[in-house]
Amino acid sequence: AAPAKPARLGLCAACHGETGMAQIPAAPNLAGQKLDYLREALRQYRDGRRNVPLMRTVIGPVSDADLDELARWYSAQTPSSQGNP
Amino acid sequence: AAPAKPARLGLCAACHGETGMAQIPAAPNLAGQKLDYLREALRQYRDGRRNVPLMRTVIGPVSDADLDELARWYSAQTPSSQGNP
Repeated sequence: AAPAKPARLGLCAACHGETGMAQIPAAPNLAGQKLDYLREALRQYRDGRRNVPLMRTVIGPVSDADLDELARWYSAQTPSSQGNP
Repeated sequence: AAPAKPARLGLCAACHGETGMAQIPAAPNLAGQKLDYLREALRQYRDGRRNVPLMRTVIGPVSDADLDELARWYSAQTPSSQGNP
């Protein structure tokens, strides 16, 4: 079953879209992305191994449980073809 | 039109698949990913800003032109639903 819409989805959706299809060229699509990969990427943004200040700022105050909920949400979405060139 | 199959696609396909659907949980799907994002990610893997030794080793000997061809290839692929949980 699809996960419930995460409480903190609004933080992500401006750039990544509610369903994980990116709204801007510099942001990646997340729809259907591998769950393990999303979890690891979030850890790396938070601790600075991926040094992207915007992501660190946005993720900083988000609890681990909320981050996990977001990763599950995006991983469970189906990519749409609008992301293709 | 879809790009021609890149000469160096074999370097990527073991983990990311020929069409960009990941073969292992730790690797991201690349099919239909934003082109600008893929190009920047490759630069970051190469220069160590994304510190993933395997990626650095694999990308190190690949020319800029070949990297660009790979980014274009994966961006032009259509995600399949097999990547979803």
